[in-house]
Formats: sequence, C-alpha cells, structure tokens
Amino acid sequence: MTPVSKGTNQAVPSDIEIAQQADKRPITDIAKQLGLQEEDLELYGKYKAKIRLNVWERVAHQPDGRLVLVTAVNPTPAGEGKSTVTVGLGQALNRLEKRAVVALREPSLGPTMGIKGGAAGGGYAQVVPMEDINLHFTGDMHAITSAHNTISALIDNHLHHGNELGIDPRRIVWKRVMDLNDRALRHVVVGLGGKPHGMPREDGFDITVASEIMAILCLAKDLADLKERIGRVVVAYRFDGSPVTVADLGAQGAATLLLKDAVQPNLVQTLENTPALVHGGPFANIAHGCNSLLATKFALKLSEYTVTEAGFGADLGAEKFLHIKSRIGGLQPDVAVIVATVRALKMHGGVPKEGLKTADVNALRRGVVNLERHVETMNKFGVPHVVALNRFPTDTEEELAFLQEWCAQKGIPVALTEVWGKGGAGGEALAQEVIRLAEATEKELRFLYDLDQSVRAKVSAVAREVYGAQDVEYSTQAEKLIREIEAHGWNQLPVCMAKTQYSLSDDPSLLGRPEDFTLHVREVRPALGAGFLVVLTGNMLTMPGLPKKPAALDMDVNRQGRIRGLF
Amino acid sequence: MTPVSKGTNQAVPSDIEIAQQADKRPITDIAKQLGLQEEDLELYGKYKAKIRLNVWERVAHQPDGRLVLVTAVNPTPAGEGKSTVTVGLGQALNRLEKRAVVALREPSLGPTMGIKGGAAGGGYAQVVPMEDINLHFTGDMHAITSAHNTISALIDNHLHHGNELGIDPRRIVWKRVMDLNDRALRHVVVGLGGKPHGMPREDGFDITVASEIMAILCLAKDLADLKERIGRVVVAYRFDGSPVTVADLGAQGAATLLLKDAVQPNLVQTLENTPALVHGGPFANIAHGCNSLLATKFALKLSEYTVTEAGFGADLGAEKFLHIKSRIGGLQPDVAVIVATVRALKMHGGVPKEGLKTADVNALRRGVVNLERHVETMNKFGVPHVVALNRFPTDTEEELAFLQEWCAQKGIPVALTEVWGKGGAGGEALAQEVIRLAEATEKELRFLYDLDQSVRAKVSAVAREVYGAQDVEYSTQAEKLIREIEAHGWNQLPVCMAKTQYSLSDDPSLLGRPEDFTLHVREVRPALGAGFLVVLTGNMLTMPGLPKKPAALDMDVNRQGRIRGLF
Repeated sequence: MTPVSKGTNQAVPSDIEIAQQADKRPITDIAKQLGLQEEDLELYGKYKAKIRLNVWERVAHQPDGRLVLVTAVNPTPAGEGKSTVTVGLGQALNRLEKRAVVALREPSLGPTMGIKGGAAGGGYAQVVPMEDINLHFTGDMHAITSAHNTISALIDNHLHHGNELGIDPRRIVWKRVMDLNDRALRHVVVGLGGKPHGMPREDGFDITVASEIMAILCLAKDLADLKERIGRVVVAYRFDGSPVTVADLGAQGAATLLLKDAVQPNLVQTLENTPALVHGGPFANIAHGCNSLLATKFALKLSEYTVTEAGFGADLGAEKFLHIKSRIGGLQPDVAVIVATVRALKMHGGVPKEGLKTADVNALRRGVVNLERHVETMNKFGVPHVVALNRFPTDTEEELAFLQEWCAQKGIPVALTEVWGKGGAGGEALAQEVIRLAEATEKELRFLYDLDQSVRAKVSAVAREVYGAQDVEYSTQAEKLIREIEAHGWNQLPVCMAKTQYSLSDDPSLLGRPEDFTLHVREVRPALGAGFLVVLTGNMLTMPGLPKKPAALDMDVNRQGRIRGLF
Repeated sequence: MTPVSKGTNQAVPSDIEIAQQADKRPITDIAKQLGLQEEDLELYGKYKAKIRLNVWERVAHQPDGRLVLVTAVNPTPAGEGKSTVTVGLGQALNRLEKRAVVALREPSLGPTMGIKGGAAGGGYAQVVPMEDINLHFTGDMHAITSAHNTISALIDNHLHHGNELGIDPRRIVWKRVMDLNDRALRHVVVGLGGKPHGMPREDGFDITVASEIMAILCLAKDLADLKERIGRVVVAYRFDGSPVTVADLGAQGAATLLLKDAVQPNLVQTLENTPALVHGGPFANIAHGCNSLLATKFALKLSEYTVTEAGFGADLGAEKFLHIKSRIGGLQPDVAVIVATVRALKMHGGVPKEGLKTADVNALRRGVVNLERHVETMNKFGVPHVVALNRFPTDTEEELAFLQEWCAQKGIPVALTEVWGKGGAGGEALAQEVIRLAEATEKELRFLYDLDQSVRAKVSAVAREVYGAQDVEYSTQAEKLIREIEAHGWNQLPVCMAKTQYSLSDDPSLLGRPEDFTLHVREVRPALGAGFLVVLTGNMLTMPGLPKKPAALDMDVNRQGRIRGLF
C-alpha cells in the first residue's frame, strides 16, 4: 500500500515500476543468508520459495533473535504505510549490519480487487516479486479456500445422504468462503431446486481470510498440530444441542492434505534483498490479524531481528498479537513500533481527506490523542515502544516538529522515517532507536486478562483497557451464545475481537480518542480449532463488499505480459 | 485412475506407492530433452514447471510432429484406464526411440475428493509428482476459479451500485464456480439480508471445469487472444434483451491478469521420464474435454509424437476434440487410439459390476457393439485408428481372443496393452501399430457438420452420426434459446454437446449401442468467448454431487507428510 496517491510525488515512480526494476537476487541466495540450503526449500520460480517444515528440527536449538512488532494509529483513508515501514525498518536494520528478517501477511484478492490494488509495502520499501505476492503467490489462499469449502461440501453431502450425525440444518455454523469481496454472498440460501440438489438451508460466505482454517494455519506449530486443530473445529450442532466437529465428519485428513504445502512459510525478499517471510493473512478487523506463527518462529531462529507487522491499529492487530499469538506461541516482543503520520492524525483531529494538504497544527493537536491511546496500550502490555513518524511529501516542518515535541514532552521515543522515498536509508533513525530499546530494556509482557476469567470479563478488559470504552452491551443473541459457550466449558479461551479498524470504538465515524462510549457485542462464535472466541462488535461484517469503482476495473495485462493496476 | 480396485493384484503396489518411489529427473533435464533451457521455464519446485509463452516465437517455424488422439468406449464403473494408456503409450514410443510427449488434462478437486481420488494415470503408467498434480498442482484451477468469480462479484457489485448497464437481474447467465463437487450450490439465492447486502436474485454454482473461462484458457492462442475471448463472454442480458459482455463490465483486464500464469502449459514427466504437458481440464461430459490447445501445439513442435487424450468415450471428448479444438487450432490427428477393455464391454453386454470376474464371452459379444459404434465414428471423421485392448488381471485368454478376432474380422487394427502393470514395455505393441498407421496413411479429417449449417442441423449431425440417435427433441426453453441465438447472429459457432458419458444416448442406463432413441435437448447456452454453443442434453448437470462415502473421507497426511487416499 502506498502512503500517498500516485500524483503527489513526481520524483518517485509507481510501486509496480519500482518493483519490476528491482535488483532481485535468486531466492536460493537469500536463503543462504539465513543458513538455508536449496534442499531446505521448495522453489516457486526463481524468486519465491517455501521453507520445508523439517528445517525446524535443525534450528530449534538456536537462540531466538529480537522481535519487533510494528503497529499503528487507527487507519484513515489517508494511508499510514505500516507495511511500508515494516519493510523499510527491516532494510534499515540490515544497513546497520543487523541480520534482519521481515515477517508479513499475504494479501487477499478481496481488497486487492476492491480498494487497495495490492499490499506488499510501497515505494522503495516493498517485498518482491510484488505482482506475484499480490495475485496468487504460492497458492496458500486458494488452498485454504479449498480446504474450507471441502468441509462445507461434506456437511451438505452428509445432510443429503441421510444425516447420520443428526445435524440440525438450522444450526450449521460453518459458512462457505471465497477470497473475494462479494457482498451478494453474505446471506444466501443453498440446496434449492428439489430433492436431487440437496437440503435447502440458510448459508453465507465469509472472505477466506476470516476462515477459521486461516487462523489455524497461522497458529499451528506443525502439520500434526494443524490436523488436530482442524479436527476440533465445531461446524454445527445436533438437534440435541451437542456440537459436531470436523473430526466427527471425518474431514480433517482431507482438509490437512489440502494444506500440506500452504502450511510451509513463504520466503521472498525486499527491494534491498532483506529476507522476507510472507505467510498467512487473517485480517485484523475480523480475525486475529498476524502472519503465521511458524513464519515468526522461523524468522526468530534465522535472524538477529525479526520485524513483524500486526494489522490495522494497536487496538486490533497488536492487541491480538499479544493476547492470542504471543500466548499460544510463547512470544515476547522486544520493541513495538507505532506508526503515525501527520495526515492520519489530522484526520483524527477532524480534517476531511480533501483538506489534508493544508498545514493544520491545531487539527494535529486534536488528533494526536489517537496516538496517545495506543501508546498507553503498549505501556499497559509492558512493551517498550517507539513512534515511527512516517513522513509524507505534504507534511510541513511545523507539523512534524509539533509531533516530535509532543512525543518528547511525554517521554516517548520517536523517529522520523522516509522509507517510502528512500528505502532502508530512510529508516536508519528508527532502526537505531529500535536497537537501543531492544538492547537496553528489561521486558516483561503483561496480559490484560487471564484465560480463567469469564468471557465478559475478558471482553471488558479489552474494551476498557485498550479501546477506552465506558461500558459493554451484549445483544440477546450474544448473551445466549455466551451462556452456551460456558455450558460447553469453552470459556477458557482468549477472545478474538472483531471491530471496525477506523475507530477505537465500534462506530467507524468516531475518530480521535472517543470517550464514554459503549461497545456493542452482537455475536460470539467459538473457534475451538483456532483456540479463541470470536467476538463480533458493532456492524462488523465477515465478507466485505466492493466499492462503486473497484480497483479490478483498472487492472490489465498486455500482450507482452506487462501489468497495470497493481500498486 | 487405476483400472482395477486395489485388492485384485497383490504384485503391484498402490499408485501412490509407485509414484512416490519414481526415479524422477529434475524438470530442467526433462525440458532439455525438448530443447528448452531453464530461462524458458518458470519452475514450481524441482519437478514441475510452466513453459513461458514467448518460447513459441522460437519454435513456431519447426515442423509439427505426429498427433495421436487417445479415446475410448463409453466408460463404465469398471474403469477403462484411458489416461493410463495415454501415459503408457508415450512411454512405449520413447522406448522405441521416438521422441514422444504426452498431453493430458489437469485433474479437478471435485472428482478427486468425490469418487476418483486422483487422475494422473495408474500403476506403472502415471504422470508425476502425482500427489501435486492431484491437489493444487501449479494453481491453474484456482486461478480460473478466481477469474470467474471476480467477474461474478463485479456483476453483483454493478447491480448494487445503480446498475448503469441496465442488467436484468433475472437474466444473469454467468453463474459462480467452485472446484468441488457440491450439489447444494447448484441452485442458490444470493443477495439476501437487506439493502446493504446486494440485490436478491437466483444464482447457482458450476464446477470450475465447466466454466467458460476454462474453455477459453484451453482454446486461446496467446495472452492477447485470451483477453479478447474473455471480453466477448456474454454474462447477462439487459431489460431490452441486448447482451452484456465481460468487456462491457470492464472486467477482462483483471480476469486476464489473474490468468497470466495459468495460461502457460505445465511440464511434468511420466514414471519413465517421458515429458508430459498437463494443462487445462474441462470435463468431456459438460465441456469440451481436451487439454489446452497451447499444450498440444507446444507438444507438436517439441516432439516427434504427441499423445493426447480427450475425455470419456469417442462420442464426447473425441467428437469435440475434432469438431471444436481441431477446427480452432488447425489440428489433424494422425491416429486415434480407441481404448477398450473386456470388463467395460461385458458391462455394455449387460453384466453388473459384481459379475465381472466371471468369464463371459457371450456378454462380450453383446457389448462389443459399443466399441463398434466408436470405430464407425472414427471412420466417418477419416481418422486412422487402432483399438487398444487394455488388459486387466481378471481377463481370460478366451475373452481377449474373442475381441482380437472380432477386430481382425472387421479389419480393425488392435493391440493388447499392459501398461498398468508393465509401464512402457507393456505398450510397445500398441506403439508399433501407432507408428505404422501414422507413417503409412494419408489422412484427411472430415467434419460431420459445417459451421454455416443451422444449430439444429449441427446438433442433428452429432446426434445421428456419432450417437446413433433416431431423432432430436427440443424443450420449449431450448427452442426459445435457439431462436435468440439466431436472432443475435451467433449460429455460426460449433456445438459443444453436454451429455452423459455412460451411454451413447442421453440416458445413462442405456449401455451397449442403443438404437431408435431420441436425444433430448434441454438448453442451449452461447459461449462466445470459447467460441461454441453449449447444448445441454438429458439431465446433465454442470455441478456434480458427492457420493455417500466420498473419497475425501479416506484421505490423510501424517506428521511426516506421508499421504493416504490419493490413487
């Protein structure tokens, strides 16, 4: 994602132009930097590879490197460039002779075709080959879609052929998935057309990145753990209320088989040849928002610094990185980087997108409270942090100075980054600060809730401590679902909050730092395979829609294979 | 697909065991046999590659090799082993020092998860790596699914955002697709849930292999032709009855971009290191049933003998190979191989599957008429042919002798093949006969209908000359559609018949050589991108269902990655 719209900086060519002119090294050379040989890899062309899982046995005894978690303020339509900073920081650490690896999520075709047109960083801080990464890459998304929908087909087939398990067709909770933004699939009726065509019932499609299979792939420790977790997934309930799992259907073997390649982390590189593990892609608003645990664990073993990103603001991706992924994987970030921009904070201060080119320190003063909340959150978690002030061409010196002084007054480390235009060189100040914090500080990650608290207490902890909510309100439906979860004894799991990314609250229009608001919990879905309870708040949808003019309509490839419309 | 169920021949290990013990050569070595260098390839691991389309410019001036089309009698649940014979014949030709290439279709996950458990040949005549080929392979199926469904999402998005093109929601003919057997998706209602969730309308899912995108990928000459054809696809009609195309939606660029890798032919190898192009996978009962034209054209340029397969019996795959693919691609098969088995012909003679182990020459005598019809068809097309009598362990000498004598009396060349148990060595007699026919005979392909005939006349020609139908009956719906096709001036296209594979008629229970039957045409769908009119007969469905005990339930992969249930 590029931090500015294309026209604003004539000196810098477009992302795809930069990416296609990249001086890429063969991926086998990149692997060698990590101590990996060709037999450790499954090659996908010259510049992409998967790392075989059996490499783990060889590296498991090595000490972990440092872990840097990149997060941000609440995103705005102005663009913040979190992936760009993640990639640029990795490049900068390498320039400072730290062996660094970046760990990112894979893009989904939904937003690529919808509004983003791609998600591999931007400018001179990208992962490449960006066109492959933004399209089918190594097929992980498709494998997840197939595994998920194979389970769906087996459920409806089971109903059709006599329903031996006694599944209540009104209580099938396993929807189908599609890796696209396709609102017309949110609510559907399937099985129409008469007896030969299955049992009619209500159904719906989620986007693939919201699939529990995606979450499982991103949290599994190995192939055996993957299969066990898939087997535990609850897909439906019987007429007597008891749960039906994937294991009950006998489908976990086929689903795992379909994922045997997808579970292996993907290795690519940045524009400056920093190794990059790009693997797994749950969204942070409707899922847990982090790349795979396997990619992070490999990165930690194979480098001195792992720079990884969690999706959207620190209220979403970072909270779930810490409460869910770190808890399951035993991770402890050494430093968090909180990406902020003048533009975003001006929007949080009330400036509309069209007004962003005008300098406005007062708006910044009003909007900086959004950053403040996320800084406080990192303090609560006990994670040392630095604010990365990601510079845009339209920022004025006065505006940048205001933010730097604001940080200085609060005692918050801050560094200006210019990685979009300058690559790793533009991230050296940030890298130095990251190294200083990583090496200097004693850290001890503190969770904001314990697993043995009640579901409501866990939700309340996140709502109050991270979002700043005054209160939490549950729908009748959510209350009923929580009672069921408790009755089944599933209440020991962490919560995976689904909430709009645009606001600290569940109302996307409340920018800045809303106070006195109530968080509305609509639904709670047990995800026993992933190992968490999905808590849906506000109007959050698990299948996005396309805008009136989708990015897809600008895409093209000509006779010679040259691509347009990915950026 | 294996010709016998696993228990019947203890001496031969299972397909996957044989495949996993294969002495595979690096795919770059296989490519070298064809005169291709590493820069001509996009590697997918060590044993799979895509051939870059720009190689065409270098090889286009080379003369074409010989083309061998492998077809069969109407399939039965006994299994005929057509892919196995295709692979074995390629291996045998190589043993006889002819540079041979086999060209096959890619398996679909639908039947793999359903009844087949895989489709890469069997025994000692397989293409490898079979587990990859049977699962995601190089992602072509997934790319087609994504391209198809991106168009679907853009249609519903267009309706949702004001419907500028004036699309009649009752006349959207572009269904969605899924690469699975999933009957519950045949007839669905989408867009439910109220205004934010799209426009409610009837819809349905076809299996991906029935997508017009699949047909286009298999008939396109290059990337530019692919894009033009996609642009021509009719997806809907306006309220005034005029057609709406993919180009009208502006979606052909994005769809082509999603297919830019998928359009490149895949190179793998057989168990005996014969190069194999496995690319594109339309079913022969509901689509045109041949691997991609690009794969066949590359194979012809790069070898002395191209052995290619068309799906199911000669009434389906071969008819469409000759009338559609050969017409579009200017192909002329030198020899056709008609695969027949004692078991299949006994079933055509009325023996149930359970009775196949008992010798029964009388049943053979009754059933051989099925073979006879297909031989006559090849005569009508003017294609020299040989019957490949594919031996099974349960066949008696007497039964085999009967069939050989029957062929001899009719003057039909025949060769016994034992490629399943013996690999290429078991196909040498067939290979010798193929070489003799290819080198000796003058050939001139005759089409059974001309493009400027009426739609009914074309359907009638296939029904009478190939199926042996007495008459053709059209539903009211089909009559209306034909009138529309004529009104739009689309009647110059060839017909792509969709018919059950089990019978020469449209009734799957009529085995042998049915006479005096009427073919029922239910629907006619224009496929302007593919360049044909799909004629649906009988009860043919474009989305299969799963059986009561799907193959998926026996699939597994263990902790070490060893696979079970693919065969």
